[in-house]
Amino acid sequence: MRIEVICTGDEVLTGKIVNTNFSFISQKLEDFGLSVRWETTVGDDRENLLLAFRLAGQRADAVIVNGGLGPTVDDLSQEIAAQAAGVDLVLSEEWLARMQTYFQRRSRPMPPSNRKQAMLPAGAEVIDNPVGTACGFTLDIGKARFFFTPGVPREMRRMVEEQIIPRLLARSGMQTAIYLKRFHSYGIGESHADSLLAGVAELAPDRSVKLGFRAHYPQLETKLTVHGADMDDIRRKLAPVEQEVRKRLGNFILAEDDQTLEGVVLAALASRDASLTLVETFTSGQITARIAHLPGAEKIIRRGIVARGMGEVYAAVGLDGGSIAAGITRDTAEAVARSAQRHTGATHALAVLIDLDEGADRLEFAGTVCLAIATEHDVASRRSRIVGGRDWVRLGAVEMGLDCLRRYLQDLPVYERIDFEKVE
Amino acid sequence: MRIEVICTGDEVLTGKIVNTNFSFISQKLEDFGLSVRWETTVGDDRENLLLAFRLAGQRADAVIVNGGLGPTVDDLSQEIAAQAAGVDLVLSEEWLARMQTYFQRRSRPMPPSNRKQAMLPAGAEVIDNPVGTACGFTLDIGKARFFFTPGVPREMRRMVEEQIIPRLLARSGMQTAIYLKRFHSYGIGESHADSLLAGVAELAPDRSVKLGFRAHYPQLETKLTVHGADMDDIRRKLAPVEQEVRKRLGNFILAEDDQTLEGVVLAALASRDASLTLVETFTSGQITARIAHLPGAEKIIRRGIVARGMGEVYAAVGLDGGSIAAGITRDTAEAVARSAQRHTGATHALAVLIDLDEGADRLEFAGTVCLAIATEHDVASRRSRIVGGRDWVRLGAVEMGLDCLRRYLQDLPVYERIDFEKVE
Repeated sequence: MRIEVICTGDEVLTGKIVNTNFSFISQKLEDFGLSVRWETTVGDDRENLLLAFRLAGQRADAVIVNGGLGPTVDDLSQEIAAQAAGVDLVLSEEWLARMQTYFQRRSRPMPPSNRKQAMLPAGAEVIDNPVGTACGFTLDIGKARFFFTPGVPREMRRMVEEQIIPRLLARSGMQTAIYLKRFHSYGIGESHADSLLAGVAELAPDRSVKLGFRAHYPQLETKLTVHGADMDDIRRKLAPVEQEVRKRLGNFILAEDDQTLEGVVLAALASRDASLTLVETFTSGQITARIAHLPGAEKIIRRGIVARGMGEVYAAVGLDGGSIAAGITRDTAEAVARSAQRHTGATHALAVLIDLDEGADRLEFAGTVCLAIATEHDVASRRSRIVGGRDWVRLGAVEMGLDCLRRYLQDLPVYERIDFEKVE
Repeated sequence: MRIEVICTGDEVLTGKIVNTNFSFISQKLEDFGLSVRWETTVGDDRENLLLAFRLAGQRADAVIVNGGLGPTVDDLSQEIAAQAAGVDLVLSEEWLARMQTYFQRRSRPMPPSNRKQAMLPAGAEVIDNPVGTACGFTLDIGKARFFFTPGVPREMRRMVEEQIIPRLLARSGMQTAIYLKRFHSYGIGESHADSLLAGVAELAPDRSVKLGFRAHYPQLETKLTVHGADMDDIRRKLAPVEQEVRKRLGNFILAEDDQTLEGVVLAALASRDASLTLVETFTSGQITARIAHLPGAEKIIRRGIVARGMGEVYAAVGLDGGSIAAGITRDTAEAVARSAQRHTGATHALAVLIDLDEGADRLEFAGTVCLAIATEHDVASRRSRIVGGRDWVRLGAVEMGLDCLRRYLQDLPVYERIDFEKVE
């Protein structure tokens, strides 16, 4: 099945808005074994919209159109859809009633301009929008089935996930259920993971499992797309592959599916009624900012401390700087973490200290990270050198700090060699 | 002049990469008074690439193609360009020599696969790439002039700015220089700014100045695009408009052109040999993270303190909590800022305290921000209620904290009503 996407709107065409709607749609389709073959972006312009609809209608089997369903004069999707299909616009009493209920619930009168949103091409089938007034719809143009979706991301997302993908799967003749299993890791690059996981997909029968990756430094997402007759069949097919991925990626797996690293760390702390103090230098509050705003963090995050000079770090954690060796080492990090834990009365403390290269930012710019995790009776630490410019060092150190804390809380070794560090 | 853009590559088409190259190209063209009329994304696929080139060659006057110039087998742009133009691929001795020099300078042998990057359609003109091995080029396909650019963002950006825009301006017959003046503000929404600035562009003669906006909450960018015979002419035309924009946006202008809010704050502190301590609650380190990593910040940022409970905030700044009223008020914020300044010996302290609504995240979720700035002999504060969900409140409070500090350092009133707060 050849699927195309048409994105509409001057804000997208002029680059004022980065087109994240398209990447969402395409990724979501990929997750269900469907592929977009062609994407077109045009502005709020009758001539180009009509041409885009006609061309896609000649080439594709299915077309998803995004945007242009709003109440204003530059929202043209229904009008041009009707023109391209050679039908009239007619009022959908069904959608008009839905909109009136929508506004009544919010105790607001419906503006007259919204009536336009209920004008659909004759013969179109409504696609429900449970979270807005823009009416999704589907109709045939040329030889393709067109699916019209709103430009507002949360409205588009629900419509694509709940209504359009099931219809596309049905049209594609894929009489199977599909499931996406995701593993998140830190420390393994995409090509390394690809070779580590060579052959795992073949552990499932009939090519029913597909392996894929999505890298967003410093994390890597490993994806298993599974086809099956139903969820029981999927679980059965997925089980040996899932088990093997867990075995091969091992301690590097920091979270699965919708979990996040910071969420996993927070939950591990919450489960033991723990509290956490963080000490940062060049990461500048970015580690604390990842975790301290989450719901529930107010009970767990005791204190975050940022300082750029070691003297100030010592002062902030109540440590006599004269008593420890100069320079940033694992020993310094351990002393700072121990002292921060005691000084603030938290059960756990994480200190991430960074010795930065001198001079201007450049690709070879590096930092030496010394981090430590302390509890009342224990301390663990690691040292790592990260190369790749100021931002790269900072991002890497944030992730390393959180991931070492995750490893510590899960009784895993805090140190394992990662792909992003320079071995000296 | 009708301009189209064709983006190529499976990673963009499948949504693995969000297409920021396109938004960069389109915005950059807009800044120079040029407009993209149509965008197409296709994968690394001969049939679709050829069709995309042919269709754009029929419709457009100029086409920018992005991606597909690399050394690997799935990089197809030169091959399909030659096919679409009906010419052969020929070796560019000029580019081969350039690549050999490129590798020699890095003391690495040139891999044989890179030779492919010097194969260009016969008759193509080389477009220089000073930062990589992908060779840009331009040739005619159909009735359009095609410009081929690399997918690597920093290579594409330099090529578009330095080589393609001048060529497009020359082809468009715009025999003028163009200049982009930008103002960054916080606290004024786009539609409000649009009405505040009504008529300013007309202060310049001959429609030579165009007004535009780019909103990225919480900041707004106000853009003046100026056409002129040369830079002197541009300065003369821009002067009355620029002056009027400064007058109307007034204290809300926080930075201009490439400046950032955090950069302006840091420079203002540096100019008076000042030092800064920050105290945050729900913003969770995000304010400190905006400023403390910047080059030079190591001399100025004394300490950043994050705590989610007020008792812990008091402890961290050496304040006896029993001595001040319960609850988060301007008085509390002033007491915390004063104490933080004294406790850490910084010349300035900023405290941003937030009283959050109870319950789950929702659109009506709000927070009351009480912030204060203290020096040894002075204190200033403001209170504001921000509505719109947890993330919205946090982002808004980060910007408000930094912007109030900017106002304080520039001797401007710390309080002026903004569009993003709820008046009670």
